[in-house]
Amino acid sequence: MQNSIHQEIDIETSDKTKINDVDFNNLDFGKKFIDHMFYCDYIDGAWQQPKIVPYQPMTIEPSARVLHYGQAVFEGMKAYKDDDGKAFLFRPEDNHRRINISAARLAIPEFPKDYFMEGLTTLMKMDKDWIKPGIGNSLYIRPFVFAIEPAISAAPAQAYRFMIICSPAKAYYTGKVRVLFAETYSRSANGGVGFAKAAGNYAAQFYPTSLAQKKGYQQIIWTDASSHEYLEEAGTMNIFFRINDTLVTAPISDRILDGITRKSIIQLAEDNNIKVDVRRVTVSEIKEAARNGSLKEIFGTGTAAVISPISAFEHSEEVFEIPDQDDAYATLFKKYLLNIQHNLSDDKHGWRYEIK
Amino acid sequence: MQNSIHQEIDIETSDKTKINDVDFNNLDFGKKFIDHMFYCDYIDGAWQQPKIVPYQPMTIEPSARVLHYGQAVFEGMKAYKDDDGKAFLFRPEDNHRRINISAARLAIPEFPKDYFMEGLTTLMKMDKDWIKPGIGNSLYIRPFVFAIEPAISAAPAQAYRFMIICSPAKAYYTGKVRVLFAETYSRSANGGVGFAKAAGNYAAQFYPTSLAQKKGYQQIIWTDASSHEYLEEAGTMNIFFRINDTLVTAPISDRILDGITRKSIIQLAEDNNIKVDVRRVTVSEIKEAARNGSLKEIFGTGTAAVISPISAFEHSEEVFEIPDQDDAYATLFKKYLLNIQHNLSDDKHGWRYEIK
Repeated sequence: MQNSIHQEIDIETSDKTKINDVDFNNLDFGKKFIDHMFYCDYIDGAWQQPKIVPYQPMTIEPSARVLHYGQAVFEGMKAYKDDDGKAFLFRPEDNHRRINISAARLAIPEFPKDYFMEGLTTLMKMDKDWIKPGIGNSLYIRPFVFAIEPAISAAPAQAYRFMIICSPAKAYYTGKVRVLFAETYSRSANGGVGFAKAAGNYAAQFYPTSLAQKKGYQQIIWTDASSHEYLEEAGTMNIFFRINDTLVTAPISDRILDGITRKSIIQLAEDNNIKVDVRRVTVSEIKEAARNGSLKEIFGTGTAAVISPISAFEHSEEVFEIPDQDDAYATLFKKYLLNIQHNLSDDKHGWRYEIK
Repeated sequence: MQNSIHQEIDIETSDKTKINDVDFNNLDFGKKFIDHMFYCDYIDGAWQQPKIVPYQPMTIEPSARVLHYGQAVFEGMKAYKDDDGKAFLFRPEDNHRRINISAARLAIPEFPKDYFMEGLTTLMKMDKDWIKPGIGNSLYIRPFVFAIEPAISAAPAQAYRFMIICSPAKAYYTGKVRVLFAETYSRSANGGVGFAKAAGNYAAQFYPTSLAQKKGYQQIIWTDASSHEYLEEAGTMNIFFRINDTLVTAPISDRILDGITRKSIIQLAEDNNIKVDVRRVTVSEIKEAARNGSLKEIFGTGTAAVISPISAFEHSEEVFEIPDQDDAYATLFKKYLLNIQHNLSDDKHGWRYEIK
């Protein structure tokens, strides 16, 4: 990998680390950043010199298209460390593939794989002390790309910036989550950008989510915009339902993100002889399953939250509590995943990617 | 108005005007900006000191939420000048109302009306020379607001920047436009943000529009995401169909922008005894009307383009050419509107707003 990058990364190291200013036991997600950041600009039809510089503010034109037209996509990934000090990424090439799928839908040029992998691993090696060992600790990694061309006509930009910034993290959600099934608002349309990690998909959820929060629900499980009858995803998480001993999750589509945690869970379930039905899931069947006791669990999956057990849902003003489950699949899969990520168990699918 | 602003605008004037560097006869839309810009930050729960400063790049954190989650909305408006040197805005209070409707849907705090109007008019007075007289000339005004808080959790920001930047403009589209009726891709969902001028709505259209352009169509007329049977809007324009002597346009909804040009046209039609049916319009009926000759015109309406006559559309690989029309409504309404905007005719509805 190191020899395939077209240009060596231009590196400017920070004079002083900020690591001692950070209380790693009290981290407010996404507000503290490691000492360095990676960036690379796209100008005149080509990605330019990749750079690592001290983490710092940057200059942008008020007319930069991202500020007007939301032409931006991102990824979320994490680095983990084992007790021997070895650091790992989890399926990083899948994140590279996906940011380019998102980029293509938003008319953003693809970012080369060697630039991505080399930028990522170089940055990780430089700021390796920020990756703390121990289950629950991780370094959250945010690759993103946005339109910087200073022009406000409604058209794709001719200039972009790709960046990687990183923030030390504890688990994203704490405790169980109560959710509202969407009945009025929607996250995405057929033929839209719901499958992409497009910036605008997230802002569109903030207001409906704030209404849900006022009712005591942390998250919304989005339904299809046409009928509000099919359960899709939670906006920052894919969703699994356990009906008796079978897991059910919606198929990916142009409205649903192809979650890396989601597909890892599907594989782990298969490895453990747990049946997974990947099929459309209706609100009615989940309500019926909750009523007759066959709904054992609901949980969300995503890089930031890993696995979030859901303890209750509301639909049409009716609240369904989901009783605690001994040997919950959510607990089981979370343990399997974290053990792989932290180098505590075998990695038969080759998901770990050691940073060295 | 001038006495109601809570805080005087803090003004820093530019040392030197850039106006002589601009060729007003050869303007590339949205790339040249006037000497000054207005901005006002929202911090600690309140809009802070409003400022006018020389147009310049600004500093932003890489973690600013707008770059990750697309939390941004904007407006488009224009200033016009008559031959006596008087300058005018067109229904500016409607733009203020609408930017706050958009903002609310994106969980962005509302911007006060007195700040908006005072910032806008002060900026216009300072850079009045950039508003050129003559039909076809205008100053395009871009109010926008975006999330600047440096934090990458997926939640509404605690800090925002509101800005107004302005760019001298000729007509946005030149000549007639050929359009594709959407059959696969979509612009917005029921319960989504299609009615708002949300940044992410625009980037989502770039890729499908680029495909349309490769087929020889400048724009897409979006259809409903559920059935692709109802014609909605063109993304930067509302759409009118003239069937014999009746204008038909889709009602505004949570998927369709409440266009200021659109509602002005509806009023002007009423003033001129032209019947307007505001109702859902199907692809089938427009194709049938094109076949039987009752489809006389299609045109788009929007601030940037004013009125864009559409000369052809394609649906299901079938192309429909729309013959030129003597006494086209598009021409008529464009003349009515421009005459009001440029102070060449009566303004019985009080749409002109003199900058003084």
